[in-house]
Amino acid sequence: MIDVVIAGLGETVVGEHWDVSLRELAYKAMDLAQQDAGGLRPQALYVGNMLAPIVSGQAHIGTLLADFAGLRGIEAQTVEAGGASGGAALRLGYLAVKSGLLDVVMVVGVEKTTDRISADIEAAITTTMDSDYEAIHGLTSAAQGAMLMRRYMVEFGVPRQAFAGFPLVAHANGVGNPNAMFRRAIKSTLYERAGYISTPLNMFDVAPDADGAAALILTRRELLPTEFTHPLVRIIGSSMVTDSLALHDREDPLDFRSVRLSVERACSQAGLAHSEMDFLELFDLFSIYAALTLEAGGFAERGKGWQLAENRNIALDGAIPISTMGGLKARGNPWGATGIYQAIEAVLQLRGSAGENQIPNARRGMIQCLGGPAATAVTHILELVN
Amino acid sequence: MIDVVIAGLGETVVGEHWDVSLRELAYKAMDLAQQDAGGLRPQALYVGNMLAPIVSGQAHIGTLLADFAGLRGIEAQTVEAGGASGGAALRLGYLAVKSGLLDVVMVVGVEKTTDRISADIEAAITTTMDSDYEAIHGLTSAAQGAMLMRRYMVEFGVPRQAFAGFPLVAHANGVGNPNAMFRRAIKSTLYERAGYISTPLNMFDVAPDADGAAALILTRRELLPTEFTHPLVRIIGSSMVTDSLALHDREDPLDFRSVRLSVERACSQAGLAHSEMDFLELFDLFSIYAALTLEAGGFAERGKGWQLAENRNIALDGAIPISTMGGLKARGNPWGATGIYQAIEAVLQLRGSAGENQIPNARRGMIQCLGGPAATAVTHILELVN
Repeated sequence: MIDVVIAGLGETVVGEHWDVSLRELAYKAMDLAQQDAGGLRPQALYVGNMLAPIVSGQAHIGTLLADFAGLRGIEAQTVEAGGASGGAALRLGYLAVKSGLLDVVMVVGVEKTTDRISADIEAAITTTMDSDYEAIHGLTSAAQGAMLMRRYMVEFGVPRQAFAGFPLVAHANGVGNPNAMFRRAIKSTLYERAGYISTPLNMFDVAPDADGAAALILTRRELLPTEFTHPLVRIIGSSMVTDSLALHDREDPLDFRSVRLSVERACSQAGLAHSEMDFLELFDLFSIYAALTLEAGGFAERGKGWQLAENRNIALDGAIPISTMGGLKARGNPWGATGIYQAIEAVLQLRGSAGENQIPNARRGMIQCLGGPAATAVTHILELVN
Repeated sequence: MIDVVIAGLGETVVGEHWDVSLRELAYKAMDLAQQDAGGLRPQALYVGNMLAPIVSGQAHIGTLLADFAGLRGIEAQTVEAGGASGGAALRLGYLAVKSGLLDVVMVVGVEKTTDRISADIEAAITTTMDSDYEAIHGLTSAAQGAMLMRRYMVEFGVPRQAFAGFPLVAHANGVGNPNAMFRRAIKSTLYERAGYISTPLNMFDVAPDADGAAALILTRRELLPTEFTHPLVRIIGSSMVTDSLALHDREDPLDFRSVRLSVERACSQAGLAHSEMDFLELFDLFSIYAALTLEAGGFAERGKGWQLAENRNIALDGAIPISTMGGLKARGNPWGATGIYQAIEAVLQLRGSAGENQIPNARRGMIQCLGGPAATAVTHILELVN
């Protein structure tokens, strides 16, 4: 039985990196991760990326990054699963170490959105939707979120203001994250006054596109010295589940089925219940996604996910803290890198290195990223090794 | 020790499929593979694809194809490594089954180039090169091949005509492959008269871009009944190696280092020498790539790979048959699908189902696909189970 542990991590500040290229940005995180792992050299590189072929005109970036980072000769490939690309790369790294054929694997997530103007980015993002049946009619990712939020409000008789708790908690948590894009707390009056992106979604309901890179080094536990530099964190659950790519193909669009199944499968592998998690890094691309994820994941009853936010049960001192380092909203959303940022933030919590955002005695956390409106869900459970 | 076997396969004709969409094309191969495997249902889908985000405006195709094929709920992701994307997907499928966490995995390669005009395709292909240092100057993939061929001719004092044997054998083999794009043998006089694509590469030195889809079902040997429908083929060697992405970063551009290392590693895993292979499916995107691959792989001395073609040692009845079903040149090159076509052709040879192209008593074969000028090389060794 191979125990997969996270031996190193590195991340850049999330934001707008106009002065560095895609490869330079990724290298910063890769270098930090190797240092953090005491110089462990990976034999393979799995890169999570969503937009580079279109936005930077650069595909084949697994090989590009291995080469640029001085790792020429190792195995390298790029993994894409929409917004879940980072989680998908982590899943592959996990499987690769589990196979016993690779001892040390690096997983990198990188996204460089500032290579183009924002209208181009929006168009690039729609390629992760169903092009023939959704994007062709002009539907965007934000419009999908808006439709889900509207339907939720109607079906459960909930006002728009009910979602305010999600961005409020996220932005409060962003203050304590030195790598977050936004580090200012907001008040509910600001949420009320914010302009709409796609009615009823307002500016604070939508996570910002961003540049960022994050890297992890995975290995087998027995390959590390017993007295390793950091407290060790292992992966005890890993699951990836798909649903229909097009939103209109769902029987019940308010049921994030892939979330439900992937939480169930990851928990079953870990031999734990979802209620045993000390925190949850979820994919709050839109506030409504956070509510639907809490419900599908079993943390709240159907139609009541927003109450966890209103009661501040999702805050750092709440019953189930989410977005502990700011989430997609405040840390920022560097698409293909987001899943790796989530993993790093969970490891920091478990190592006891989360600074002022530390959850006391955190021993287990769940991370989850989504592609589209939960067309893809990737869930991992991380645990502090005793 | 988990024995990974190929339980099913399916492929479409390679060529121009104007009447079907990307998803429909992929589904044909996926459906055939499931039928061939006696209805085995995969738990995961790894899709090798290179151009869909740019050419078809469609990313996130792992989830799209799982959904369209009636496999909603399974794990799915897309893998990209330039021209080696198909091989990369096979490598991941192999690792996933080896991990013991997945019992049945489907690996699909698909490419739909006819969604755009050919000038757009050429531009899309350059994204797999180094965009910042190669593509930006107008270098294309064919120009890379031309530069390598020119340098080879100068360094080893070889005439252009020396490469004729590669397309001659490939097109001769294409005649017997019902799924090949080109099924007519050519004569050396036709090769001599052919127009240039990028001097000194002529039309027959370059493999055609094409549409195609191919799928494999992988599983653990013990999960199949002892009397399975087909003779079983297992994967006994798997290796992926990178080199510099940019050609100008190589110390010796005529040394396909990634090919050398990946052949060595795959052979070492299999416990076999390269000379024990009954055939070799190599990546003859350009005739020069075939020569350099034979040399780096140890099948010919440096500067003498072309002699194997001239002497017809690479023909079906030669010492080391290559491109046994037509190779990239005659079967056609549906980029991200090519690595899976190679695997299927190898399995057909090992099952004894290669029709008029059958190599008598084939028991072991090597397949290899490349991204860029061997910036990435993926090698697998397949063996007939006794």
